[in-house]
Amino acid sequence: MAENSVLNIAKNADTASKKLASITGNIRDKALMALAEALESGKSEILNANKIDLDNAQAMLDRGEITKSVYNRLKLDENKMRDMIKGVVDVYNLEDPVGKILMQRSLDSGLILSKITCPIGVIGVIFEARPDVIVQISALAIKSANAVILKGGKESLNTNKKIMELIQEALLKVDGFPENVLSQIYSHEEVAEMLRQDKYIDLMIPRGGNKLVNYVKENTRIPVLGHADGICHIFVDESADLDKAKKIIIDAKTQYPSACNSVETLLIHKRFMRRETLLSQLEKAGITLIYEPEDWHKEYSDTILSVKIVDSLEEAIEHINEYSSGHTEAIITEDRLNAAMFMNMVDSSGVYHNASTRFADGFRYGFGAEVGISTNKTHARGPVGLDGLTIYKYKLQGNGDIVSDYVEGRKQFHHKDLI
Amino acid sequence: MAENSVLNIAKNADTASKKLASITGNIRDKALMALAEALESGKSEILNANKIDLDNAQAMLDRGEITKSVYNRLKLDENKMRDMIKGVVDVYNLEDPVGKILMQRSLDSGLILSKITCPIGVIGVIFEARPDVIVQISALAIKSANAVILKGGKESLNTNKKIMELIQEALLKVDGFPENVLSQIYSHEEVAEMLRQDKYIDLMIPRGGNKLVNYVKENTRIPVLGHADGICHIFVDESADLDKAKKIIIDAKTQYPSACNSVETLLIHKRFMRRETLLSQLEKAGITLIYEPEDWHKEYSDTILSVKIVDSLEEAIEHINEYSSGHTEAIITEDRLNAAMFMNMVDSSGVYHNASTRFADGFRYGFGAEVGISTNKTHARGPVGLDGLTIYKYKLQGNGDIVSDYVEGRKQFHHKDLI
Repeated sequence: MAENSVLNIAKNADTASKKLASITGNIRDKALMALAEALESGKSEILNANKIDLDNAQAMLDRGEITKSVYNRLKLDENKMRDMIKGVVDVYNLEDPVGKILMQRSLDSGLILSKITCPIGVIGVIFEARPDVIVQISALAIKSANAVILKGGKESLNTNKKIMELIQEALLKVDGFPENVLSQIYSHEEVAEMLRQDKYIDLMIPRGGNKLVNYVKENTRIPVLGHADGICHIFVDESADLDKAKKIIIDAKTQYPSACNSVETLLIHKRFMRRETLLSQLEKAGITLIYEPEDWHKEYSDTILSVKIVDSLEEAIEHINEYSSGHTEAIITEDRLNAAMFMNMVDSSGVYHNASTRFADGFRYGFGAEVGISTNKTHARGPVGLDGLTIYKYKLQGNGDIVSDYVEGRKQFHHKDLI
Repeated sequence: MAENSVLNIAKNADTASKKLASITGNIRDKALMALAEALESGKSEILNANKIDLDNAQAMLDRGEITKSVYNRLKLDENKMRDMIKGVVDVYNLEDPVGKILMQRSLDSGLILSKITCPIGVIGVIFEARPDVIVQISALAIKSANAVILKGGKESLNTNKKIMELIQEALLKVDGFPENVLSQIYSHEEVAEMLRQDKYIDLMIPRGGNKLVNYVKENTRIPVLGHADGICHIFVDESADLDKAKKIIIDAKTQYPSACNSVETLLIHKRFMRRETLLSQLEKAGITLIYEPEDWHKEYSDTILSVKIVDSLEEAIEHINEYSSGHTEAIITEDRLNAAMFMNMVDSSGVYHNASTRFADGFRYGFGAEVGISTNKTHARGPVGLDGLTIYKYKLQGNGDIVSDYVEGRKQFHHKDLI
């Protein structure tokens, strides 16, 4: 077996994660600063590596193998480098997510139970073209004391390799910071191998399209955090304000049509009187309206919008719970009771009243950093910040305490919360 | 397709879960009271049904097909019925886990984000012989506003059917409480079918042996909450107090040897001076000591204990992180720094200092009710109470707010926490 087989990478990451759990937040913060400095001083090396990727991508673009938007996301420049470095400093400035006391309870005199946040362990992240993701995820992993195995897009191979090389070099010099906290794999075969390492990898985060997320979910026993589709809905209720509806729908559809939190389907109450006016305003704003039921499952990623007229609030809720991907949905209404009913009964990570679905984002929510957006209904849901990279353990401090004393009635629990 | 196919059961449970999300805690509490009363008034019917199961089990016991302990767990009597009913009342008395505000933040003037607990949706529970589990899980599901599909052990088929029939009848009479919140399936084929319903079922909780848990994990895309093994360790450090060590190990091994939180492997520091005395005290207490490395993976469920001498605290931690099932581990030491290092570096749901591993239990932790014990490292870890049956959603209250105002600099987020 090769030295750097995925099994060995995963084992080493596991060992690193155990060591990470015992070092202070101070050492992790030093590692983050070293990372930021490495990017700063390695800027021209990174841009040179990126140039190679861009030349290859240009050829692929010319052959029609990739789209212009993939090319653009791949491209680094001084501005993007500055944003990347600022992103690391932002993560540095966040509160340490590890070691927070979530609960502390005296079970009995001298028997103290504490529920304390801790890292998850080893996280596998698969992402597509954007090379800035490697920096963002590395920073989040270090801050939250998790080891991470990264697989980037093949289009950004040279950029990713160079960034990782510079980061690794810098981390080696940080006193007390364990090795193998970050590692990288490159091929599809290695991804398949990574998905089998459920003994060592605790969480998979695929950041990319529907196909990638489904492939990961189908092929692993490891818990998966992410979202496959972003089929978001806006419901214009009977009492909706026309101007709010227009503003919000145009924002949610046209501000960044390929974002996962863009709206795909518009539901309109049959008794909303300004329907024709609203629809013609949307068309004037450059939105193509489609009335085909076979499109209700579709994520357009374009300025195209499905429209359906519904008989009632209930029908709107049922439609959404059937066709939505559980990401984010909004109701436009002046009726507070209808808004409350919509927000309680729609089963999505975000339920909005008179606001654009485009607000679904970790930075807009004020999380400081975002791991991704989850449509899961366990662990973490919606935009996920550092909290989503932690779990907790229970620490029990006794002094020779045994259960038989309680089972046999010699002692009783008193269960007093200390914080 | 049959009316009651598992697909239909899952679809109906999904519909029920959406309705459950919109009713008040008050209606859910009324349902719990109705459930408790149904058990009270149906006591003799339940005991009669249990008699049929017990007669069948007696024949199986005679043929050696089941163990005496399975038979005992199957048996209901007046005392167990009283405990079952009390358990429902205990759940009734717990705080409503739904609708708690976890965070409330003003993103900007008039744009309020709230993170609010909500039910997960539909939960599948597979359990073995004990018929009281059906009551416990039903009560927890109702309290947490989740729909649940139950599959009990075949040994308790008649008891489970009767209990479910009485509960269903009682719930039908509760005003505003939706139908199909609870449903039951019976065969292995139906279980296989249930595991394919990842469109409708959000969480699987297998409560049973290693084989069951692994079968479920291997055969579904639905997240699984539970624990396969309970391989717990106690490490006797160099500075351990002999009396505490003796008391704790005897409790952790003999108080209930088949429990998942019983100790299986004892690690002793080579410089712990009272080793021979300790080991002979353990043997006097009826514990069989085994020194074979091939047993380090073994859950004995008996008064048998693996013993290994280790060179250091570090070796003990490494051994545990390699062989433990991540359930609960204890260190016996008078050295606070060693205890802290053990508790930080051992990657298990419970890490104890000078206390018996047998404390790992929802009731002992003061949770009031227990769904099960999880060795997962996402969502919920350790003993899981009602909290583990909830997730959260983000509600955003606006007044026509759009993202382009922020992207184009006309407005800025102020991110002020309101609670």
